[in-house]
Amino acid sequence: MEIYNHTYYITKAVKLAKQGIESGKGGPFGAIIVKNGAIIGEGCNMVTSQNDPTAHAEIVAIRNACKALNSFQLSGCTIYASCEPCPMCLGAIYWARPAQLIYACTKEDAKAIGFDDQFIYEELKLPMGKRSIKTLQKGRDIALEVFKLWEQKEDKTEY
Amino acid sequence: MEIYNHTYYITKAVKLAKQGIESGKGGPFGAIIVKNGAIIGEGCNMVTSQNDPTAHAEIVAIRNACKALNSFQLSGCTIYASCEPCPMCLGAIYWARPAQLIYACTKEDAKAIGFDDQFIYEELKLPMGKRSIKTLQKGRDIALEVFKLWEQKEDKTEY
Repeated sequence: MEIYNHTYYITKAVKLAKQGIESGKGGPFGAIIVKNGAIIGEGCNMVTSQNDPTAHAEIVAIRNACKALNSFQLSGCTIYASCEPCPMCLGAIYWARPAQLIYACTKEDAKAIGFDDQFIYEELKLPMGKRSIKTLQKGRDIALEVFKLWEQKEDKTEY
Repeated sequence: MEIYNHTYYITKAVKLAKQGIESGKGGPFGAIIVKNGAIIGEGCNMVTSQNDPTAHAEIVAIRNACKALNSFQLSGCTIYASCEPCPMCLGAIYWARPAQLIYACTKEDAKAIGFDDQFIYEELKLPMGKRSIKTLQKGRDIALEVFKLWEQKEDKTEY
């Protein structure tokens, strides 16, 4: 049961974005994660202050929320993000499996202030040989042997 | 200048994948990052042991390599991954901006042992309203105000 409405929580996420700029942590993005009305994780962009290109607000919030839940899944949670997630963050959201995603600005809004997520969306659609980062395949035979070990492992934790 | 060839480094990445399974850290994936012939970061999947759905081998390796370089960019680096990166990891790779990506197994190989990255690729292509995670837009007006603050900020670090 959510005590407040979406506007209440998205306003919190936007406030984190603002605080992130003011404190020099990184870009203008914030995110919070809510379960049963309680905020269980939050984050703002910390790419430049932490020297971590993966420290987008959503990733930071997901990691914090999972720590709080002691789980690698965000079942029943809602993610509030001050901007439409980039492909990296959307991928993380799919792996975390929350119930819902609410975002404020669009990727077009982000592009207008210099964050070109759209470029990555376009790259993902291209075949390997046409991508801007040179990409090659090597060593599939030896890597497949390790995949077989995983298949055969009896006490594994699936995710 | 790379002292060894791609086979040498991809074998190292695959070895990390194997060690990750054996030590119970997570799924069968490993990655290393090389600059001027030196391994500057490595990682294996640690999703289940760390309760972190973002702890894929590539993300772990990128964070470690960036820490080593004291930079949020992997300019001139090569990422070796024991499997074709998922959309989350590919997104992270684009943000980190390495020179090159070498991978071993394909996403089809991963699907065959239970890791369905393809599902996320398909979801990313869908409009918001058709995605399996319920997605809504709220509060764009207040979030745009924070984007304006970013535009106006004079001492910002762009990334």
